[in-house]
Amino acid sequence: MRKLRFEEIGNISEDKIHILGRIGRQKNPLPLFFNGSGVEVVVTGSELWIDVETDSDFLEMWVAVEINGAFISRQMLLPGEHSLCLFRSMEPSAAKRVRFYRELQAMNDDPKVKLLVKGFRLDGEFKEVPRYERRLEFIGDSITSGEGSYGSMEDVDWIPMYMSASVNYSTMTAKALNADFHLISQGGWGVYCGWDNDVRHNLPSVYERVCGLANGEMNKELGAYENYDFDSWQPDAVIVNLGTNDVTSFNMPEFVNPEDGRTYKMRMNADGTRNREDELLIVNAIVDFLTMIRKHNKKAHIVWCYGMLGSDLNLVITEGINKYKENSKDENVSFFQLPNTTMETYGSHMHPGLKSHQNASVELVNYLKYKLNW
Amino acid sequence: MRKLRFEEIGNISEDKIHILGRIGRQKNPLPLFFNGSGVEVVVTGSELWIDVETDSDFLEMWVAVEINGAFISRQMLLPGEHSLCLFRSMEPSAAKRVRFYRELQAMNDDPKVKLLVKGFRLDGEFKEVPRYERRLEFIGDSITSGEGSYGSMEDVDWIPMYMSASVNYSTMTAKALNADFHLISQGGWGVYCGWDNDVRHNLPSVYERVCGLANGEMNKELGAYENYDFDSWQPDAVIVNLGTNDVTSFNMPEFVNPEDGRTYKMRMNADGTRNREDELLIVNAIVDFLTMIRKHNKKAHIVWCYGMLGSDLNLVITEGINKYKENSKDENVSFFQLPNTTMETYGSHMHPGLKSHQNASVELVNYLKYKLNW
Amino acid sequence: MRKLRFEEIGNISEDKIHILGRIGRQKNPLPLFFNGSGVEVVVTGSELWIDVETDSDFLEMWVAVEINGAFISRQMLLPGEHSLCLFRSMEPSAAKRVRFYRELQAMNDDPKVKLLVKGFRLDGEFKEVPRYERRLEFIGDSITSGEGSYGSMEDVDWIPMYMSASVNYSTMTAKALNADFHLISQGGWGVYCGWDNDVRHNLPSVYERVCGLANGEMNKELGAYENYDFDSWQPDAVIVNLGTNDVTSFNMPEFVNPEDGRTYKMRMNADGTRNREDELLIVNAIVDFLTMIRKHNKKAHIVWCYGMLGSDLNLVITEGINKYKENSKDENVSFFQLPNTTMETYGSHMHPGLKSHQNASVELVNYLKYKLNW
Amino acid sequence: MRKLRFEEIGNISEDKIHILGRIGRQKNPLPLFFNGSGVEVVVTGSELWIDVETDSDFLEMWVAVEINGAFISRQMLLPGEHSLCLFRSMEPSAAKRVRFYRELQAMNDDPKVKLLVKGFRLDGEFKEVPRYERRLEFIGDSITSGEGSYGSMEDVDWIPMYMSASVNYSTMTAKALNADFHLISQGGWGVYCGWDNDVRHNLPSVYERVCGLANGEMNKELGAYENYDFDSWQPDAVIVNLGTNDVTSFNMPEFVNPEDGRTYKMRMNADGTRNREDELLIVNAIVDFLTMIRKHNKKAHIVWCYGMLGSDLNLVITEGINKYKENSKDENVSFFQLPNTTMETYGSHMHPGLKSHQNASVELVNYLKYKLNW
Repeated sequence: MRKLRFEEIGNISEDKIHILGRIGRQKNPLPLFFNGSGVEVVVTGSELWIDVETDSDFLEMWVAVEINGAFISRQMLLPGEHSLCLFRSMEPSAAKRVRFYRELQAMNDDPKVKLLVKGFRLDGEFKEVPRYERRLEFIGDSITSGEGSYGSMEDVDWIPMYMSASVNYSTMTAKALNADFHLISQGGWGVYCGWDNDVRHNLPSVYERVCGLANGEMNKELGAYENYDFDSWQPDAVIVNLGTNDVTSFNMPEFVNPEDGRTYKMRMNADGTRNREDELLIVNAIVDFLTMIRKHNKKAHIVWCYGMLGSDLNLVITEGINKYKENSKDENVSFFQLPNTTMETYGSHMHPGLKSHQNASVELVNYLKYKLNW
Repeated sequence: MRKLRFEEIGNISEDKIHILGRIGRQKNPLPLFFNGSGVEVVVTGSELWIDVETDSDFLEMWVAVEINGAFISRQMLLPGEHSLCLFRSMEPSAAKRVRFYRELQAMNDDPKVKLLVKGFRLDGEFKEVPRYERRLEFIGDSITSGEGSYGSMEDVDWIPMYMSASVNYSTMTAKALNADFHLISQGGWGVYCGWDNDVRHNLPSVYERVCGLANGEMNKELGAYENYDFDSWQPDAVIVNLGTNDVTSFNMPEFVNPEDGRTYKMRMNADGTRNREDELLIVNAIVDFLTMIRKHNKKAHIVWCYGMLGSDLNLVITEGINKYKENSKDENVSFFQLPNTTMETYGSHMHPGLKSHQNASVELVNYLKYKLNW
Repeated sequence: MRKLRFEEIGNISEDKIHILGRIGRQKNPLPLFFNGSGVEVVVTGSELWIDVETDSDFLEMWVAVEINGAFISRQMLLPGEHSLCLFRSMEPSAAKRVRFYRELQAMNDDPKVKLLVKGFRLDGEFKEVPRYERRLEFIGDSITSGEGSYGSMEDVDWIPMYMSASVNYSTMTAKALNADFHLISQGGWGVYCGWDNDVRHNLPSVYERVCGLANGEMNKELGAYENYDFDSWQPDAVIVNLGTNDVTSFNMPEFVNPEDGRTYKMRMNADGTRNREDELLIVNAIVDFLTMIRKHNKKAHIVWCYGMLGSDLNLVITEGINKYKENSKDENVSFFQLPNTTMETYGSHMHPGLKSHQNASVELVNYLKYKLNW
Repeated sequence: MRKLRFEEIGNISEDKIHILGRIGRQKNPLPLFFNGSGVEVVVTGSELWIDVETDSDFLEMWVAVEINGAFISRQMLLPGEHSLCLFRSMEPSAAKRVRFYRELQAMNDDPKVKLLVKGFRLDGEFKEVPRYERRLEFIGDSITSGEGSYGSMEDVDWIPMYMSASVNYSTMTAKALNADFHLISQGGWGVYCGWDNDVRHNLPSVYERVCGLANGEMNKELGAYENYDFDSWQPDAVIVNLGTNDVTSFNMPEFVNPEDGRTYKMRMNADGTRNREDELLIVNAIVDFLTMIRKHNKKAHIVWCYGMLGSDLNLVITEGINKYKENSKDENVSFFQLPNTTMETYGSHMHPGLKSHQNASVELVNYLKYKLNW
């Protein structure tokens, strides 16, 4: 590593680094809060390293590296300071585009989890990073967190190594459209409640913070709880992929919320249909969430995508969207069903695998091209 | 053809012939009204012929033959009496399952079009035709009529040779599920109006007749206008694939209905969105059609499928379904989006080709298996 | 058919008709001897018919039609005169490219089989048929005759309806390369002997006649036995796909040749390997056949393709090719293995189906582009 | 890492560890010489670590991890001692099958390159590793070293991160057949000479040593130069995939061998064909190599596979095989062509990418199943 100079992340001029994912005011060191969050540089030189700091408890950090658009490596990072070589022994004069990114979703369960980028070590020069002309924001659950995108069909542990941004319909879609993207997702959460009837686990409650999913004092200091500056990054399209956990809650036991001591349960009728009042809770949550998204994203096309793990909630979701349209007169919103995952396309613990993410991305890319006239 | 004996279709006992497609009271000769309508027999012997009578004017009949489940031939039939050899020189002792069917949709435009099956000529025996355990009814437009399923990308004529039941998501779905099926479809028609704003061109108006799509005295005599006896054939699922023409009408010129002299036009707003009153015409037509379908099919799962030529009407269709659900408290109805057709999957005149029909069928088969617990 | 005028095939000027497949001196009426043989015209007008005459005994003729490059129809033709409508009701001003072709291989077993094209009936004009810039000759067995390309996995009859040029790696290859092509093939035949040890059943013995595969006085009169005028059509590549039957003969009973009363049998050794002397019979037949092909095709690249039904003879075939190269110093010859057929890609009676023919064609197209610098 | 106990690799009983790849006498620590070489254990417990030592100069080590048969991670390892966590926070009672393996080929160019496995750290128990019932040995060049299996189409550096065992037809084939496997391969080498006419770069010269590809005193001490004990691991099939570099040498400049000062060059004739004497050098090298392979693998089926980067040498390779067969009377040898790589299936620097490796594996699996009656 001799010959290499260190460049602090905060000292790299804005045109020479592209930051993927939402960020708050703190940029030096730079916290990466979400899966898919990362840094992208174009450098000459024979060698490039990245300095990061991580922490975690039970559930550790995972990161991945992409060079010139191709997946290169993926590894676990345990708590500590890490200096990671991203490439070496390459032709010094050639410019390489390198992306280092977080594989692990924002970890609501572990307030210790963090990933900070401090800077790069290199023997070349930073070049201008070509700007992405398009921007996509994805809001989702375990599917968007890439749960099950790695691992064997038989694996059922709920651990970071099975989650990813590298095998993920959202990143595939962004890549195919040459788009910058933000992911805001959490496994098990819904638009109204989580899979286990935990009504606190809904994405709308965290959407307006930089990373409302992160917990604890440390994350607070990193700026996770700041109000997110939506004006800083206006997407062309917001893709909401929620509903899979809301619909699961009907089949799960009741949940006692420790915060208010009350019991929550989405109810089934005796005939096996869903309780209408409870469906309306979801409908109204959708109306409210769409209203919130539109408030912050005035021009974006909003498309609610759903179907990668069944389409049982199609009519409830579209009821919500239609009600929102009626209330708001907003016509720039749509519903698009994604292809279901089958026995041939599952990854681990009955979540979408590589092939399912690819199938979904093909359809979604096609749809966005049409809808946004790209 | 010496050695062959003629068996009139009306003399073949019910267990030894399977009739595909809706039929009325007339069965001898047997009119085949729809694409996919046909006859299926299991015979021994070295040779099998079918005697049919056809008529047509500008737009001629097309038929196809399947042996032991595999596509064998497809040809045009001009007006007249035809004795067609379905197979010959085969091992006499082996039983062959043979399906002869109509490729051409019911021809609303040509009252002369007919296809009558008179009987078979054979040197073997009719065997029992194994019964299909499942039943599917498809109601659709040009997609379900297989328009563009044959022909080259550049072909734009609107003629029978480009329509089919042999390359068709509906027949592929039925085959994959080992299901009997009925098709009721018409190119250019919708649930509320046709692609050209012709409000007479809606499927609900003809659904309750044996073949309300057929016109003229000859078809009347064949029983096309009889009320259809829904009790005679109750499907497990009704698949409605309509909306593609309704949504097109917004972009087409007004239509003067010769029957009432009035002008019809689905209107666009100045901002490029659809006129809300006109959307509601479709919504209400959906409510009414679902009510009609349910009246006649008490137990069937009704799934509205849509999306093979764009999904612009998703929210209007689901609004209709949701309104129907609210009115009727009927929960046995769903919405399922089919994969869109792309430049790689078009057939002729910008309609779904083989690959698009296959893609749609894969998704639909998967969905029906789940929904009907098959 | 009123309004249509008849044009005798012999009166159509050479630039306005393209004849597919080998022909001899007789062109009016035009005999089509091989599968894939046919006529191609470009016509305006609303309607086009073709007048043909067929004969056959046990095994009947099959033909197919392609319009603007797309498969349209396929049907059986029993003995007699036929006036077949190829299209009607099409836009008169548009030029349509129409190919009418034989599906059935040359029938060595039935001297009555014939297919004569007499002329067309039309209401438009013949336009110039764009010339193909490339030419391919395929010499093969049942694979090239398309045996099993139609029909169900369970079908085992050896009858014409399972053979084709429409589902055939050779025609797919020609189409992908925009090439004119000739097929010379016969099911069950080899380069040295047939699958049943019949030493008369080798392609070299018939290669130099227009259609040495056809038998009887009628075919003689049609010019089938004339020496083929190789100068009239020099291919860019000759693709030989033989060996599958030669290797099968080792596992089949001996054959008594009725012509010389002698017994023939390709022998296996006690240890399950092939008798070396008998292998050398094949090796030498390959040397001789390559010598014959080169004599008549001075500049063509000759590629021996093999492998669609197993690759057991790879080393014997390449031994023959290498021996030929050594003798002749001819370097313009190669060996190319085609992908094997699997349980997923079989058609009927354990022959390649659609998917296998497509797989083979993809590889062969790729190879020919490279080899011929296309 | 508290609570974890260390188990030295040499202390794990043989039934509780499976070693992938050739090994010599030294097993504690265990050197992994080839790509695909690795260790496989089945363990209970919540956590598993592996302790390894690496060294290298310019070209660093890369390793990968597979859990329960699924790819999990892949990373660079710079020189030093490493304690790598393979998994953590997993259900302690469940047994996990874990494979840790080398991605980087044996590095003939860098005598410092090494990868030693010292032991595991765990809180569970080693369970018996199910034995593989089949064994495959692959001998190859850059294709078998997985060159270009990672990286972008535009990448041209020759560095370790583009090589792999994780995306490799050989490991895919072994996995599909549930087979243990050995890889012996080197990028740029041939059966007679390297791509650059370096006659020292032929696989036969190193085949009989444990890892004749490794250089220097350190590797000598690790046992790389020991005669390999072929009896310790007899494969069911030996797959030789060589020839791609031999054929390239004809188009490359001459090479001066520093060891004997002589100049070497495979020559082209003026007409663009290959010099026959030089072809015979390859032919004879093949005869000699097959003889050597057979000497050490008495019962294995030997199949020469070739074609993933063109099939120009088909006839030279088969000439060699045929000559070997003639000399040896050995019939248990065959030639099998693998599908070529196309623009759609390239990885980086014009080598096979993921899709090409998958295509090759599908064909090879099918072939081996047939040939070995599996």
